[in-house]
Amino acid sequence: MLPSWKDSPTRTAIVDFVQRVTAEGSPDHLPPEARIAVFDNDGTLWCEQPFPIQTGFLFGKLAEQVKADPLLGAKQPWKAVVENDHAWLGNAITKHYGGDDSDLKVMAAGLLSAYAGERVEDFAAKAEAFLRNSENPVLKRPNLKTAYAPMRELLRYLADNGFTSYIVSGGGRDFIRPIARELYGVPPERVVGTSVELEYREDAEGRPGLYHTPKLEVFDDGPTKVARIWSRIGARPVFAAGNANGDLPMLKATTWDAPASLALVVHHDDGEREPAYTAGAEKLLQAANENGWAVASVKNDWTTVFVD
Amino acid sequence: MLPSWKDSPTRTAIVDFVQRVTAEGSPDHLPPEARIAVFDNDGTLWCEQPFPIQTGFLFGKLAEQVKADPLLGAKQPWKAVVENDHAWLGNAITKHYGGDDSDLKVMAAGLLSAYAGERVEDFAAKAEAFLRNSENPVLKRPNLKTAYAPMRELLRYLADNGFTSYIVSGGGRDFIRPIARELYGVPPERVVGTSVELEYREDAEGRPGLYHTPKLEVFDDGPTKVARIWSRIGARPVFAAGNANGDLPMLKATTWDAPASLALVVHHDDGEREPAYTAGAEKLLQAANENGWAVASVKNDWTTVFVD
Repeated sequence: MLPSWKDSPTRTAIVDFVQRVTAEGSPDHLPPEARIAVFDNDGTLWCEQPFPIQTGFLFGKLAEQVKADPLLGAKQPWKAVVENDHAWLGNAITKHYGGDDSDLKVMAAGLLSAYAGERVEDFAAKAEAFLRNSENPVLKRPNLKTAYAPMRELLRYLADNGFTSYIVSGGGRDFIRPIARELYGVPPERVVGTSVELEYREDAEGRPGLYHTPKLEVFDDGPTKVARIWSRIGARPVFAAGNANGDLPMLKATTWDAPASLALVVHHDDGEREPAYTAGAEKLLQAANENGWAVASVKNDWTTVFVD
Repeated sequence: MLPSWKDSPTRTAIVDFVQRVTAEGSPDHLPPEARIAVFDNDGTLWCEQPFPIQTGFLFGKLAEQVKADPLLGAKQPWKAVVENDHAWLGNAITKHYGGDDSDLKVMAAGLLSAYAGERVEDFAAKAEAFLRNSENPVLKRPNLKTAYAPMRELLRYLADNGFTSYIVSGGGRDFIRPIARELYGVPPERVVGTSVELEYREDAEGRPGLYHTPKLEVFDDGPTKVARIWSRIGARPVFAAGNANGDLPMLKATTWDAPASLALVVHHDDGEREPAYTAGAEKLLQAANENGWAVASVKNDWTTVFVD
């Protein structure tokens, strides 16, 4: 079990936790229905560098829209996408952190409009096709092969020990679902994530359908992850894994005053086998340090990062 | 199996459907992960007459609030509740159907404020205590014993045949969850329903918590049920049961162009063993008739309605 994990204190913390909550007679024993685990996705289960996989999916659609309607190319965010203007895109985010949301709102509105009007089944088919046929531009490997082998093993190890795992992602719920079962062993009903409002309509023949709208329903990050876990699961998890500041409330709410719990932080400190970064993870790494949470160092705890 | 169902065409339709989708080699065979069933709750799984059980829970809280702050009793909807003014309450709904939402909004705001500020765990404990200790004012039986025996048998029969059942209720998700496993065999993560927005806060010691707000998040009725099924399950059900017009889109979306599916409508036509009514179910009963959906007549299809 866990063959891609080095025999390190982090691996020991995971195995000890699982044994504590599963061993009959253990004071921390939990019945299977209480063995609930939650995982962030981007940067925790699969690589999010140089940008989240979904970004490629959305930008590709914006580029297609400009081909069909060249006038769109004069307008943001289509302009930045077709001109490969990373500065504008990066600035939109930098300005947001400085308190100026104007460009970020323009970008979000463009991205939200990309698949508006699609039936949910058609969106799922397009997301799946993209995921199966695209690659990571830095790692030069298929996007589905940028899932972290040690984390896939961890999901399986937990399942083998009676845990039920959920993905709780800041990324799009309907983007991840089509491949979550195959990639992670997590069925669609256990994928929680960012979503757009869906509109119910019956067409001229009366055929009912659900269609994506350009309106954000939930941005599933930060404290919202905690609210969504309750709303979707109705129980408190005992295991939570994340890699960014937006996962901090989820890890805190999972472990607070809960001796039979474990928080795991993936720390991207390798730089050889994948990009290294701490930007956007500073507060989480600090909390991990202060609370003694388990930290999975990509460099030191994982013998293998990706498998082909 | 299904001992509280008479040997009638409706029972036959249910059993035939289950055999068609489970028998190996059947052209309509479905793998277990596709055997998804959705059930409305009020009026489908338990009695909703003379008013939904949750109404008693909320009105009781409003009456308590007036005891603590008598001035509230001069204000609607507290006034109508403490004066037992059914006319005002009924009129609010009648006016709503006539296009005038003014009183309904006043009532909804009062009801939504009833448990605002409660931690989700405290709300769950209060809901559970109410459900275990209250009774139906007409049937004079404990509210938990107003669950329909034939429907509980149906839930078990489906589970025994590899189905996964969800409750998709216009009533409150967090109100039903505490007893759904015991009463229906449905765990909290498979209860979908109306919800208020939840607020994440950390108290002075840093303890994280989720609190009810007085803001409606989702009113889970009508087309919204279809959107919520997708959002929560990520798949199309093959069985749907309901009893009111608000269930019509759910039953239609389940069965449209789907030979391996079944819609079941509970028809409250008995009048001796429970109140009889068709108000609010006219369109659903008409659609059942037009589409040949299965109709469970309380009078003619159920040998037993309630068990003690």
